[in-house]
Amino acid sequence: MIGRLNHVGIAVPDLAKACALYRDTLGVPVTAPAEMPEHGVTVSFVELPNSKLELLEPLGDASPLRAFLEKNPAGGMHHVCYEVEDIIAARDTLVQGGARVLSSGEPKIGAGGKPVLFLHPKDFLGTLVELKQA
Amino acid sequence: MIGRLNHVGIAVPDLAKACALYRDTLGVPVTAPAEMPEHGVTVSFVELPNSKLELLEPLGDASPLRAFLEKNPAGGMHHVCYEVEDIIAARDTLVQGGARVLSSGEPKIGAGGKPVLFLHPKDFLGTLVELKQA
Repeated sequence: MIGRLNHVGIAVPDLAKACALYRDTLGVPVTAPAEMPEHGVTVSFVELPNSKLELLEPLGDASPLRAFLEKNPAGGMHHVCYEVEDIIAARDTLVQGGARVLSSGEPKIGAGGKPVLFLHPKDFLGTLVELKQA
Repeated sequence: MIGRLNHVGIAVPDLAKACALYRDTLGVPVTAPAEMPEHGVTVSFVELPNSKLELLEPLGDASPLRAFLEKNPAGGMHHVCYEVEDIIAARDTLVQGGARVLSSGEPKIGAGGKPVLFLHPKDFLGTLVELKQA
């Protein structure tokens, strides 16, 4: 059902510092920050040869990242994102098996312009899982 | 300095159940469990098209995963592993920049038979980082 590891999401308290760490210290290309108000985040992607990291900083008071960063002030691994060929078919199969979809249950448009949705971490080994239409 | 995302490490309380989730529910090939007593873990790899997940279950009373699973009983994202061309050169450059290497500071042999070492999460955005000789 799932395909490529599209990215690993890492929540950070300071996106500029996080970008500098990956770009300058670890020597990897990093994209310019992009605000995504409908998700409550500002994101930069770290472009590794075979996958990406998504560095996420809270945007706005209602950002879903704020509670995570209160528990993890230095930042931390936040989610993994897998590509699927058909996000509706994948969702429906997982829901039939008992998995829970977060929020409305309907896909939203994500950072790459493709539909995404999030699955409950309790159903996936304590890991927040994002599915993204390939 | 860093290259491919070799794998994402996910700590789990029950490796057999975790393997079944990825193999049967999510439809991805999963390797047979392998015990690594020197690391205190039993591991299976989830073989995604472009990278891997390393599912980790504690092995032995002194396993470094036990404290993590006490805080996260359902499991959770544990580390990311990046490939480097020269693990000693990478370590020395990072240490000169102020980063801390865990344990003895010397590489050990990891799951794929290659030298690995771990970097302090406080120096890497709250994320435990494994470096692996490519």
